[in-house]
Amino acid sequence: MKDMLGREELLSIEDAGKKILIAIDLVPPAEFLTETETSVNLVISREIVSPEDLPGFTRSTMDGYAVNSTDTFGAKEGMPSYIRLKGEINMGEKPAFKITKGETARIATGGMLPQGADSVLMLEHTSEVNENLIEVLKPVATGDNTIQAGEDCKKGEIILKKGHRIRPQDIGALSGIGVTRIWAYEKPKVAIIATGDEVVPASSSLKPGQVRDINSYTLASLIETNGGKAVKMGIFKDSYEGLKKVVEEAVMKNHITIITGGSSVGTRDLTAKVINSIGKPGVLFHGISAKPGKPTIGAVINGKPVFGLPGHPAAVIVTFEIFIRPMLRLLSGETMKLQHMIKRTVKAKLSKNISSSTGRQDYIRVLLEEIDGELWAIPILGKSGLITTLVKADGTIVIPTSQTGIEQGTEVEVELF
Amino acid sequence: MKDMLGREELLSIEDAGKKILIAIDLVPPAEFLTETETSVNLVISREIVSPEDLPGFTRSTMDGYAVNSTDTFGAKEGMPSYIRLKGEINMGEKPAFKITKGETARIATGGMLPQGADSVLMLEHTSEVNENLIEVLKPVATGDNTIQAGEDCKKGEIILKKGHRIRPQDIGALSGIGVTRIWAYEKPKVAIIATGDEVVPASSSLKPGQVRDINSYTLASLIETNGGKAVKMGIFKDSYEGLKKVVEEAVMKNHITIITGGSSVGTRDLTAKVINSIGKPGVLFHGISAKPGKPTIGAVINGKPVFGLPGHPAAVIVTFEIFIRPMLRLLSGETMKLQHMIKRTVKAKLSKNISSSTGRQDYIRVLLEEIDGELWAIPILGKSGLITTLVKADGTIVIPTSQTGIEQGTEVEVELF
Repeated sequence: MKDMLGREELLSIEDAGKKILIAIDLVPPAEFLTETETSVNLVISREIVSPEDLPGFTRSTMDGYAVNSTDTFGAKEGMPSYIRLKGEINMGEKPAFKITKGETARIATGGMLPQGADSVLMLEHTSEVNENLIEVLKPVATGDNTIQAGEDCKKGEIILKKGHRIRPQDIGALSGIGVTRIWAYEKPKVAIIATGDEVVPASSSLKPGQVRDINSYTLASLIETNGGKAVKMGIFKDSYEGLKKVVEEAVMKNHITIITGGSSVGTRDLTAKVINSIGKPGVLFHGISAKPGKPTIGAVINGKPVFGLPGHPAAVIVTFEIFIRPMLRLLSGETMKLQHMIKRTVKAKLSKNISSSTGRQDYIRVLLEEIDGELWAIPILGKSGLITTLVKADGTIVIPTSQTGIEQGTEVEVELF
Repeated sequence: MKDMLGREELLSIEDAGKKILIAIDLVPPAEFLTETETSVNLVISREIVSPEDLPGFTRSTMDGYAVNSTDTFGAKEGMPSYIRLKGEINMGEKPAFKITKGETARIATGGMLPQGADSVLMLEHTSEVNENLIEVLKPVATGDNTIQAGEDCKKGEIILKKGHRIRPQDIGALSGIGVTRIWAYEKPKVAIIATGDEVVPASSSLKPGQVRDINSYTLASLIETNGGKAVKMGIFKDSYEGLKKVVEEAVMKNHITIITGGSSVGTRDLTAKVINSIGKPGVLFHGISAKPGKPTIGAVINGKPVFGLPGHPAAVIVTFEIFIRPMLRLLSGETMKLQHMIKRTVKAKLSKNISSSTGRQDYIRVLLEEIDGELWAIPILGKSGLITTLVKADGTIVIPTSQTGIEQGTEVEVELF
């Protein structure tokens, strides 16, 4: 397939992705030492070994009496055993006494078992005869109603592997074993270069013919919410020298470089020329069979991915999902697991017919609406240059390359924003 | 149903939730002025009206020639029209000239249409006869290949409604109309009070009988990753006066208060007594039909929700999902939309039989594994006091109140962490 000017070959999204994957170096970012408490969503760079047993002592999981289980064997309602109450275990302290055969001590959930005890009798399976004597109505076995020292994890055990992305419960576990600082990979840095003689920052007032930058802000936010660090390089005029200088700097200092703007043929050709002048292999494709997103440039310079995204806001969102998001995960140092591939989707019925060209993957923005208890996906059919179509939308549906459209009423899978 | 000590009535999760919902005041947090650029995931507190048209002028969406469409009517390959090339439009500037009947100007994508032009001829539907004359091979209609001034949004139009949670594309749109600061609701503040005579901070070395705090750290991270602000109040001994003072302060200064720790009956009773002493209506339930999570306390003090969570780490995660997460969204000021109810789930086959009691909702932690191309959910059957069971797990499956178990091989829905 040729592009609209008959000059470029359009690649499928899969083939485009493969071209980039083959050419990049999968080197994780540098590591740094950070506080465990605030490390959620970071990727750990060294395996974490427990420095101690968790818990450090055998604890009760019930309110009751710490006993030697042999003292309870055979006990039942009509034929109880009797044990002598020696005292009470204070929480958070080592028991001040040990128990011997025929003795017991009162213990609450979380208390440390005294020496001589191997299990806990539940309160409701006993009765107090007097302040010194307990009646046992049910037997217990060794270990019953306790968590053993080291049962949660043992000293020397690997608690988290290198490449694991930290979740809240991991922070809890690390706190439990006293690991308050961990080594993690820095977030992959993504340089954003905006181009266009007509583009000015959001804070500028406009002269006739000028527009404010939309894509740098959208991209920076997408990058930050997907585990990356956005580095905004600024807005650059469509000049070879100026653009070359900033792209060179961006590629050197960052893990991924994105050049946005310029949907005109001249600007796109300039971007490709600049990329090819900096390093090998350079531009790998110039045009993909997706709409929006067709004029996307994919390149690799010295092992690092570089993307030239079309200027239309809708195209930026689609190409971010296709290329930048997976790239961010790949370059984060994370060991990829099955569930990382799972997207947040919802099924809905399509509210009207949509046509599409074969040989092109179409991304249709939709609004979700519940009508008479059924969920409907209502296509928002605006030009891809309009940012407000994205503001109105709740997600996108994809029409695969092989299909010529989808009929009204068909159940579709909506990928939520 | 009675609890294990025969004292408390156990509520279903739905009924427990309703009791809280009826008693709380749905007042959103205070608003503040913030930078649009870093506002992702905040909820806006005032509707945003566009201060200007976007775009501010009619722009070309193609490379080609700006024309008055009437000059192209009837043009075709065998019978072209001819128009005079007057000059070129510079990007980012107001055209230095206007065109009149029979005239055209070269324009690139994004360029401003000169006065007298109402549409753009695509480059590929023209040919240059000489440097002053263009041959038109196909007609255009008014507005073709342009975005009209105000087409994306109009001055005075509501671009985002109050109660909307900001997404990356919204930041892009606001940047486009020059709105660099917005009013948003503060994140709901959630106080975390850890209790237990045996509990010490993560940074402490342990004396015999002591354990480190796990739940405060897990909860703080869960709150922060779910749009809240965690306020750690510290670790408190099981004393009425000390606990009352900190709970009073927490309820006054925060939107939600969580008291964790203490699974012993004495500690739970103390927590309930303290809550009831502070304000009305006080404790609404003490025990829910869920496992883990059974001894959960739900309360409202002066319109604000207060939860007493059991000390076991697995119970903390489950009760966070059941109560705290929905509460955070409800109190964020966000207008709730359909897709907020959607969870990230994946279907898998259960690797072994699991039994459950009727009248109780069971939450089983599972590990996901792909075996021979099929996804299996492998239950991790550890005591709910073990934090490492949560570290090993990928998600949970729920066994509803009405079921007595699930058979091996059954397809289950896994809610991913």
